[in-house]
Amino acid sequence: MTHIKHDTTECTFCKVINGDIPSYKLYENAEVLAFLNIFPVNAGHALVIPKDHIENIYGLPDETLCRVAIAVKKVAIALKHALDADGINLEMNNESAAGQEIDHAHIHIIPRFKDDGLKHWPFKPAEKAELESLKDKITKALED
Amino acid sequence: MTHIKHDTTECTFCKVINGDIPSYKLYENAEVLAFLNIFPVNAGHALVIPKDHIENIYGLPDETLCRVAIAVKKVAIALKHALDADGINLEMNNESAAGQEIDHAHIHIIPRFKDDGLKHWPFKPAEKAELESLKDKITKALED
Repeated sequence: MTHIKHDTTECTFCKVINGDIPSYKLYENAEVLAFLNIFPVNAGHALVIPKDHIENIYGLPDETLCRVAIAVKKVAIALKHALDADGINLEMNNESAAGQEIDHAHIHIIPRFKDDGLKHWPFKPAEKAELESLKDKITKALED
Repeated sequence: MTHIKHDTTECTFCKVINGDIPSYKLYENAEVLAFLNIFPVNAGHALVIPKDHIENIYGLPDETLCRVAIAVKKVAIALKHALDADGINLEMNNESAAGQEIDHAHIHIIPRFKDDGLKHWPFKPAEKAELESLKDKITKALED
């Protein structure tokens, strides 16, 4: 498989992959790198990235996506055991409107502990008519 | 592949899969189901679940995990196009300490819009010594 690494001179995570920026590396294979986030939500907050420079979920080839997902599971289990975590949040922010700050696809693995005080997204019940309308729009997009 | 569905009488998502609870179904294949969350964080908030009753990421077989991840990408792209979303958050909460409310593995796909007012996790810089210590613990767990 060809590893085309675009933007290596500009992209922070490409620099981490290439070793130009040091990192707290946790795990690595031919396609994936896992390392500690130096701006953690909780202690042990890790990131998993594809070695190829791909901006977000939309452009991740299925094969790479699978490799990333399997590495995420592996690191999540290790974090749980190593830190005796009570739970794990996985999160992937795609595009700046979703909170993505570095345009190289990355999955956050956040260890959670009972009463760690982190707040969850605010859920609210939806209207039936809105759900019907959304379902129609989205299923149509899935058929395109 | 054998689909062992435990807890179908107790698990809300197994009931959704079996049709005992109606859902706003978006996408389905042999192993995966996607449907609208009726308690959305934002309009179009979808969930992707494996049809097998597996509680969380820790127990998801690699093959199932890949199928789920590929479906997540597919639905995320459809949501973006159908709703003209500016971004997409993907989230998976594992165990109650991480906000998991139904013990059947599920990935949240949350469309985001500029200035939608949803707040992000609070990041904070980490101490170098703590990062070193965490790295050691976690890499050890990865080797086990």
